[in-house]
Amino acid sequence: MTTNNNKINADLLKERAKCTFNPKELTHFLDGSEQKTLERKEREKFFLDDPELKSKVPMEYLSHKEKYEENIRKACVIFRKVQELQNEGKAGMENYREILGGQLGSAILPDGNPLTLHYVMFIPTLLGQGTIEQQTEWINKAWNCHIVGTYAQTELGHGTFIRGLETTAVYDPSTEEFILNSPTLTSYKWWPGGLGHSANHAIVVAQLYTQGKCHGIHPFIVELRDKETHMPLKGIIIGEIGCKLGMNGTNNGYLGFKNVRVPRMHMLMKNSQVHPDGTYVKSPSSKLTYGTMVFVRVVLVADATSYMKKAVTIAVRYSAVRHQSQIKTSDPEPQIIDFVTQQYKLFPLIASVFAFHFSANWLWEVYNEVTSELEAGKLRNLPELHAVACCLKAVCTADAALGVEQCRLSCGGHGYMTSSNLPGTYGLVTAMCTYEGENTVLLLQTARFLIKSWQNKEETIHLDTVKYLVQTEDLPFTKSVNWIISAMKQVTARKVELAAKHIDERVKSGKAPEDAWNETSVELVSAADAHGRAFLLQTYASTVESITNVSPQLKTVLIQLQELYSVNTALRYTGDLLRFTSCKGKDIEVLQSWLEQLLNLIRPNAVGIVDGFDVSDEVLSSALGAYDGNVYERLFEEASKSPLNSEPVNKSFHQYLKPFLKSNL
Amino acid sequence: MTTNNNKINADLLKERAKCTFNPKELTHFLDGSEQKTLERKEREKFFLDDPELKSKVPMEYLSHKEKYEENIRKACVIFRKVQELQNEGKAGMENYREILGGQLGSAILPDGNPLTLHYVMFIPTLLGQGTIEQQTEWINKAWNCHIVGTYAQTELGHGTFIRGLETTAVYDPSTEEFILNSPTLTSYKWWPGGLGHSANHAIVVAQLYTQGKCHGIHPFIVELRDKETHMPLKGIIIGEIGCKLGMNGTNNGYLGFKNVRVPRMHMLMKNSQVHPDGTYVKSPSSKLTYGTMVFVRVVLVADATSYMKKAVTIAVRYSAVRHQSQIKTSDPEPQIIDFVTQQYKLFPLIASVFAFHFSANWLWEVYNEVTSELEAGKLRNLPELHAVACCLKAVCTADAALGVEQCRLSCGGHGYMTSSNLPGTYGLVTAMCTYEGENTVLLLQTARFLIKSWQNKEETIHLDTVKYLVQTEDLPFTKSVNWIISAMKQVTARKVELAAKHIDERVKSGKAPEDAWNETSVELVSAADAHGRAFLLQTYASTVESITNVSPQLKTVLIQLQELYSVNTALRYTGDLLRFTSCKGKDIEVLQSWLEQLLNLIRPNAVGIVDGFDVSDEVLSSALGAYDGNVYERLFEEASKSPLNSEPVNKSFHQYLKPFLKSNL
Repeated sequence: MTTNNNKINADLLKERAKCTFNPKELTHFLDGSEQKTLERKEREKFFLDDPELKSKVPMEYLSHKEKYEENIRKACVIFRKVQELQNEGKAGMENYREILGGQLGSAILPDGNPLTLHYVMFIPTLLGQGTIEQQTEWINKAWNCHIVGTYAQTELGHGTFIRGLETTAVYDPSTEEFILNSPTLTSYKWWPGGLGHSANHAIVVAQLYTQGKCHGIHPFIVELRDKETHMPLKGIIIGEIGCKLGMNGTNNGYLGFKNVRVPRMHMLMKNSQVHPDGTYVKSPSSKLTYGTMVFVRVVLVADATSYMKKAVTIAVRYSAVRHQSQIKTSDPEPQIIDFVTQQYKLFPLIASVFAFHFSANWLWEVYNEVTSELEAGKLRNLPELHAVACCLKAVCTADAALGVEQCRLSCGGHGYMTSSNLPGTYGLVTAMCTYEGENTVLLLQTARFLIKSWQNKEETIHLDTVKYLVQTEDLPFTKSVNWIISAMKQVTARKVELAAKHIDERVKSGKAPEDAWNETSVELVSAADAHGRAFLLQTYASTVESITNVSPQLKTVLIQLQELYSVNTALRYTGDLLRFTSCKGKDIEVLQSWLEQLLNLIRPNAVGIVDGFDVSDEVLSSALGAYDGNVYERLFEEASKSPLNSEPVNKSFHQYLKPFLKSNL
Repeated sequence: MTTNNNKINADLLKERAKCTFNPKELTHFLDGSEQKTLERKEREKFFLDDPELKSKVPMEYLSHKEKYEENIRKACVIFRKVQELQNEGKAGMENYREILGGQLGSAILPDGNPLTLHYVMFIPTLLGQGTIEQQTEWINKAWNCHIVGTYAQTELGHGTFIRGLETTAVYDPSTEEFILNSPTLTSYKWWPGGLGHSANHAIVVAQLYTQGKCHGIHPFIVELRDKETHMPLKGIIIGEIGCKLGMNGTNNGYLGFKNVRVPRMHMLMKNSQVHPDGTYVKSPSSKLTYGTMVFVRVVLVADATSYMKKAVTIAVRYSAVRHQSQIKTSDPEPQIIDFVTQQYKLFPLIASVFAFHFSANWLWEVYNEVTSELEAGKLRNLPELHAVACCLKAVCTADAALGVEQCRLSCGGHGYMTSSNLPGTYGLVTAMCTYEGENTVLLLQTARFLIKSWQNKEETIHLDTVKYLVQTEDLPFTKSVNWIISAMKQVTARKVELAAKHIDERVKSGKAPEDAWNETSVELVSAADAHGRAFLLQTYASTVESITNVSPQLKTVLIQLQELYSVNTALRYTGDLLRFTSCKGKDIEVLQSWLEQLLNLIRPNAVGIVDGFDVSDEVLSSALGAYDGNVYERLFEEASKSPLNSEPVNKSFHQYLKPFLKSNL
């Protein structure tokens, strides 16, 4: 979808005229600086303006196979351009995720890039887990794209619980090789991106056996396909897994092994080793691989923010352009954004973009600190970071998925059109609830940390993110963000306390601790969720408080949004507030009326705020959300691209319909 | 997906062995009788076993155009089979929706049937709004499929608010014709199924102008395409609207008019007429078309039930087959259905199937009563039925959409596979939240009735579904379903009271009543939602209480499910319960612990209950949900159908990937 210098829709002109702050200032604030905004836009332009990266026919009209072929074509162009950027010193590892998977990546290839894992998983794993010798051998080939790799961990039978993986790698000292096998149907690798027909190498995670003993999962480099012919090598059973809800261009694959032999040095040995005679040497610390998992979750919180930005931009602009129904019978049909129910659907989502953004920034900073500490051998702060990252990943991806869907539904029937790009955005965002740690599993990991923190009060008092568990007080209700934050902390603390008590009671009644944990898990999940909410509220407040370098006009808007996010959270948790704090029913009325006031205050700036997100039309790819607001023209323009519309009569009329109708005469 | 006489999965065998009741009894109970079960299965077999209705390649792998062509082929076969059934006296109007759109229809054509509206809207509108003469002329042609019609109401700019439609039909007495025009881009018809390239006739809803005056919207029969060539007729601008989130086989179309002339008798004149000289005669009652709208909403509640049945069957069976993670480190990996968090995700959804089913039955009965009354000229009970139908449509479709999505997410990554059929089911169920009255709009219609009922207490006392508004009492908490029902009624009454008060206050402060209504609309929506919940709970209770013809074993299960549904509803509304009833925080603990007990009681029967839903493998169309539980074999079998897997190396390797990799050497 191209941005023409179209006439701007009159309603949007009116909205922009009444905005009380400068949206550009917001853009620079969110990007970090004006310079960073420029760099982002330059990168976007470099990719999105390239005619080689445009398709003749929108992807949704192609067959599954054609989609793959078109995606591989584009993926090669993208990789070539990435190499150009590298050569000019304009891109490093930090940009790959954005270009290959993040907001920009999903704009270039909305169905996903089949080669993404090469840069995002294959090379980082070589770097993180290969010895210097292994890196020397492989990194060069991979970095310069002589080979293309993927990362094969998940199996048909095992996802989040990776200890249960079944693929075996048995060491044979007589030939100094590992023999890979898929002992069961469920042990087949299933899901890795690009595995189906794209990659010719993979890092395969398998249970290592040597000298008759299993030593748990380890990574192995395996060549999958012949360099010249791309034919699967002997013993490699490989293909793609079929259609999915979204990301149908990523070529997710399956992979089975029948006595596939790889040299000993194909096991990545930075942490653990197998000697030529088969002796196994264990990794000094199992926490070292922990950091990467945290990194990915940090990135996902940022991605959730991007998807939300996109969806609310589309829904808010559409709601300003769309006129429908009546408030007063004497008046013309109002913009649907003037319905308070519509404001209630959308404005808290606008506010949540900021909540996610600030928490993503916090996570990123703390991740970098903790990583430096790790390199200096200090592991102390990792569990706390891990606990926050787990519940933020779960809470933010779940909220973003619901939020994107709410945006889509708020656009009525037109939100159901592929050309709105809301269905596609949902396909990408909902997947995040499952991958890189299923959300319920992650919340239970946070809960384990919370219960431990509750039990070790003396240590907990020194941990920034959880010390409130042992320090809360039940403040009397006031109409303030501070009260809401303290109340949500109180809620979390009481939920943790209650869950701990119920575990105890179950253990005392004779249950095994594990069963007691399982039986209390609904409450535990709810406690971890509340912890995530309290963290988001606190981080939002601390960030807004510390902002000094913005205009008073922008600051006012940031504070209004912060208040809206806080009140809306409180109103989602009235049951917990009434149960665990001293607030009363009449206080909820105060919050409800405050919410309504805030919706009204934000109304004139709604379009300005989403303009400030500065998501370009190319990235939005939405007939409903473009900057010019020419919604109906664009819906038509998109419909005209359907191959069915290239001829007035489809051949099926003559083949099927006419013979049927005639047979009835 | 075919049901083979495969070996049944061992876990499912174990589950079925421990079931405490006979699932077949449940099937007959839900169908209405053993005879009705047999008839349903016979109809399913008649369609689903027909080799002409099977596709060589699963639809998801086809291009958009190929999907349409394959769907038209099948649609003609289905229509031929419908005619066969008619001739044998085995099908009437009551079966069309099921075959063309309901559970069976979506099993035959998961992407939707492009000819559905012919039987579901075109013919019923001719019957309902045509004069005897018009019926004589058109019904025969339509019934025998000499012509194929659709129903064109929604426009690019107007959906739920049909009074705002812009298409014009201006009467020209000199030729005794109407001249149809699309005065604006937004006046183009947009969405009607089959309009793009399938139908050759449409009933078009347009603003009628005669003698210089607009008389509002009326229906007109318009010929769209030439009978022999299928070419669009003069002045008809027509095509399809492009890809959507789901239903990509329905050929939704757009339609514009440039001075299209139709004879006077093409206006359907049963209710209003235009005389040859242009004199307009108004319909005696505007409430007469009201009934059809109610009918469709009744049907949608039943459809929501079917989709939920499908999704929970898939998720529960998969959760019994899937093993993952650990409860105790010493034990083998448990079935994931043994995690209480998984039970909490799924079992309340099982229970909601019954809640929806019983309310759909109630609606159907009352709809028939009220229709008989209408025919006798008695309109009194229509507004009350309309109010219930609106909020049940909104509450049940919204819950079903969330529920189907929760089922999908509970299946982890495999739920994201198209072959799970959960994404496809979501695509169908979420559309129901928008069409036939957008949910928020419908809740506000119910709210209007509730506010009126609150204001007219003397009348309200005689209305079954709302008399509780003026009769509630705040019962002291007991651990009982009856308390929950009375408490949710109390909640609704207090919400209605509060909303009425806030509207009053706003009016007194000088706001126009319409603005006061809009500003209170968030609370009004919430009151209507609570009314729907109270109705579902009450109907569930009354139905279960009145059941006498089932075994004690089944009755026990029905009561457990009813309790679970009630407790789960209460726990979703703790904020309202604490605010508006005398229950306390410790009572919530009692409810939470009751919920956990119920999950544990239902656990052994979970598979038995979904077996009792008796959704055949063909209807489920799910690799994860089949009766035999051979989940992994079926996932593989489905993947093998991908055209990409029909050759080991895709041509794109030689075209794009190899040249790129070689260029880097």
